[in-house]
Amino acid sequence: MSEKVIAYDVTLRDGTQGEGISFSVQDKIRISHKIDELGVKYIEGGWPGSNARDEGFFEQVKKEKYSNSNIVAFGSTRRAKTTCEKDSNIQALLKAETSAVTIVGKTWDFHVSEALKISNEENFELITDSINYLSKRVDEVFFDAEHFFDGYKSNSDFSQNCLTTALESGATGVVLCDTNGGTTPWEISEIVTNIKKTNKNIILGIHTHNDSGLGVANALAAVRAGANQVQGTINGYGERCGNANLCTIIANLNLKMGINCISDKNLTKLYEVSNFISDMANLSKDGKAPFIGKSAFAHKGGIHVSAIVKNNLTYEHVDPQKIGNQRRILISDLAGRSNILYKLNELKIADEVSDENISEILSELKKLENYGYEFEGVDASFELLVKKVSNQYKPKIELIETEINTRQIVPSNESSAKVVIKIDNEIIENTASGSGPVNALDLALRGALLDKFQFLNEVVLTDYRVRVVGGNKGTESLVRVIIESSDKDITWSTIGVSKDIVDASWKALIDSIEFKLMKASS
Amino acid sequence: MSEKVIAYDVTLRDGTQGEGISFSVQDKIRISHKIDELGVKYIEGGWPGSNARDEGFFEQVKKEKYSNSNIVAFGSTRRAKTTCEKDSNIQALLKAETSAVTIVGKTWDFHVSEALKISNEENFELITDSINYLSKRVDEVFFDAEHFFDGYKSNSDFSQNCLTTALESGATGVVLCDTNGGTTPWEISEIVTNIKKTNKNIILGIHTHNDSGLGVANALAAVRAGANQVQGTINGYGERCGNANLCTIIANLNLKMGINCISDKNLTKLYEVSNFISDMANLSKDGKAPFIGKSAFAHKGGIHVSAIVKNNLTYEHVDPQKIGNQRRILISDLAGRSNILYKLNELKIADEVSDENISEILSELKKLENYGYEFEGVDASFELLVKKVSNQYKPKIELIETEINTRQIVPSNESSAKVVIKIDNEIIENTASGSGPVNALDLALRGALLDKFQFLNEVVLTDYRVRVVGGNKGTESLVRVIIESSDKDITWSTIGVSKDIVDASWKALIDSIEFKLMKASS
Repeated sequence: MSEKVIAYDVTLRDGTQGEGISFSVQDKIRISHKIDELGVKYIEGGWPGSNARDEGFFEQVKKEKYSNSNIVAFGSTRRAKTTCEKDSNIQALLKAETSAVTIVGKTWDFHVSEALKISNEENFELITDSINYLSKRVDEVFFDAEHFFDGYKSNSDFSQNCLTTALESGATGVVLCDTNGGTTPWEISEIVTNIKKTNKNIILGIHTHNDSGLGVANALAAVRAGANQVQGTINGYGERCGNANLCTIIANLNLKMGINCISDKNLTKLYEVSNFISDMANLSKDGKAPFIGKSAFAHKGGIHVSAIVKNNLTYEHVDPQKIGNQRRILISDLAGRSNILYKLNELKIADEVSDENISEILSELKKLENYGYEFEGVDASFELLVKKVSNQYKPKIELIETEINTRQIVPSNESSAKVVIKIDNEIIENTASGSGPVNALDLALRGALLDKFQFLNEVVLTDYRVRVVGGNKGTESLVRVIIESSDKDITWSTIGVSKDIVDASWKALIDSIEFKLMKASS
Repeated sequence: MSEKVIAYDVTLRDGTQGEGISFSVQDKIRISHKIDELGVKYIEGGWPGSNARDEGFFEQVKKEKYSNSNIVAFGSTRRAKTTCEKDSNIQALLKAETSAVTIVGKTWDFHVSEALKISNEENFELITDSINYLSKRVDEVFFDAEHFFDGYKSNSDFSQNCLTTALESGATGVVLCDTNGGTTPWEISEIVTNIKKTNKNIILGIHTHNDSGLGVANALAAVRAGANQVQGTINGYGERCGNANLCTIIANLNLKMGINCISDKNLTKLYEVSNFISDMANLSKDGKAPFIGKSAFAHKGGIHVSAIVKNNLTYEHVDPQKIGNQRRILISDLAGRSNILYKLNELKIADEVSDENISEILSELKKLENYGYEFEGVDASFELLVKKVSNQYKPKIELIETEINTRQIVPSNESSAKVVIKIDNEIIENTASGSGPVNALDLALRGALLDKFQFLNEVVLTDYRVRVVGGNKGTESLVRVIIESSDKDITWSTIGVSKDIVDASWKALIDSIEFKLMKASS
């Protein structure tokens, strides 16, 4: 097993091949600084010869300063029937002026004949020429051996000769790629061991994909067999099923194998970096992502929770703080008193709650969850429930009446809502128009409250989710509405359930506002 | 390596521990039939002693018939300081009347002292007693060895003795659980090999979790080391980072290791079953899921696409059709045409559609998908679109006006809707009341149509799903409504997208009815 392993990030190149991913030059610059903060040694920035955006990135990056990372430009071996001087891709690599470049070349004979349609000899020439030329002009040249494992399985002599050719032509290191993601860990293990036997002291990289759900396992198997550079993307972005997730690889290397490819201190930034980059990608976060997902340390079952409270190692494989993540206890009908207590402590509201209150809360929760509520993601509604049951908060707003009118008259639709509520014995009425009945209701309610509570102005609805629960009754089904609200400081989530989507939305809206009023008054 | 491996699904038990997962009894019944169709041998249905919903499931399931699967009830070893007769959990297992039960017990000494707070000897008694008692009353009793790998690493004698105790007490098989998901494939491999040495011919299960991103790799490593039963959940649902994804495991066993735990024919249903269950869970599908994700065989890069056209093996590790998935080419209009042609052939409506029509359909689809539509699961809306574009069907119903009035007056709510439509130049008006605006609209529309089309009487709405798409605008977000309708013969799905939930619902409703009218008139 390698004792020292270098991390090499390909988010900005291979990651951008993923469906739905599109980074601007400025996004790429910001992401590169985040990965630098994490302490990753190489950041592949893009393919300067292939598109204008990547060219722009390499122009811009010349002015940037990095503490830990080297930016790498990516390209391919020169085209057949030309020279490096005349190959626009190779020239674009030089123009990028990075201290390291990586070029990909064919190492599967099937691809040489089927895709390039040249002879194996010609393919060796492409490799020799390109690496020879680049290694005289750039500090470090890595050779990405495309489809190496498929190639090795079909014709191991040819694939190995490609590597030898690259190394003899001056490559700083070679990277074995499982381009189609179809190789298994035991195959990786055997093949890397073989390569290592005849190439003891080389820089040997591994680049895997997740098509078989084995991307991370394959990378780790390669390291155990002697690979000392490991490539992947943040959050596993990439074509098809994605590249191997570099976050998972780094955490496993560090916490399971004692190999620090980033420092322990930087490891605590992993959660933040992952989230930053999914925000930049504008992709929803994978809550179940190992180590860094929101649910990665979330506990729901009552037995688990009561054990966790006694000793966290009972149901956690690592301490979530090591990667900057945190434990979450979910409230559900699978929960018991210990979940509730844990949650009360977490929300710092346990002191005011008696044992009797807890029994009441538990029975109220079970009743509501049986009806269709789900409290695991909606801490604000949970806190309101607790404070109402324990007489710590009395709701300020009383509903008198709402009336909503929605019309479709081709080609347009209109909705208007009237809200009548009582606050401190005062009846307030307001009407508003909106896109659809729920939006109209939302606007009418806000309008009704603003005079009395101007600070509600700063509350914005950041998400509105509807789910049909217990579902086989068509449009008469119960719906669950979850609303996420934010002000300048915090974000909170509330829930409402009803057969009537307007009524369910109303409940979630009112909870959202009552929560803000409660916080403002405490 | 085991030559024969039995698949054991835990979606309905361990899977429901996942954040955001909540299945009704009816959902669980429908899911169990889907997993049965797939040919999985065991389906763990839930924990009858722990909650009312699971109890309801086991009551209902007694009346159901399965072709391939055995339903399993799950529970734990009896509590300390009581007997099996007096233990409500054990009794609930018997009451479930399944032919197989699985009970979980402690096999990590740390858990025995920290969580149960009893002696190791007492733990052996719990195992012996429970299995003894159950194996005399139930055909098959499996023992889930909780935290087996952590236990083995800390005190291998104790953990092994727990297994021996279970087997000697009459367990049909033992299942090694990596409960916290922290074990690596090489550890699994070594430990399973050791267990297998002294227990050559036993039924040995493996149950892994994905906390280290290694859930699937761990299951496969165990099979290579001799495990012959493999547990997992559809789509990898489960607590924290989820259980090992049974879909990925099954596909790897079949396509990479030549082990058919389901038949090749059933494997082609994998994509459909995975999608059905994510629909039931109302969780967004993981497009990047290995083998069964929407993006799993999606190609974006130009080089890849041109190679794929020459030979699909260049950039695909397996043939997508083997798991019922399909290739998607993301950027090429040419590929778009072939997708549409594929679909038209599938729906047997290709003959009437000209080349020009296909171009029109393609541009219409792109426009709609760009707006928020998604035609993957809604064949009826797709077929209507095709027939409208190719002049094979002219919609019968024209919307003139709808008006919906929704009132909340504590403690009740009421909604009424007026619908004005034109059919064959005749204006029809109808009003109805319902639970919420959408239900009222639905009832008013049906009432308006029944005089003319009595056969609509047999159409029932079997599902109504709402999802916010492209979401950060609160109650003004775009919503996507999907409606599933059935008559006595078939089930069809239609879609509507709008900022206004009433409008989106209307579009899906009208499509549903037009589809029925189209079928009735052809």
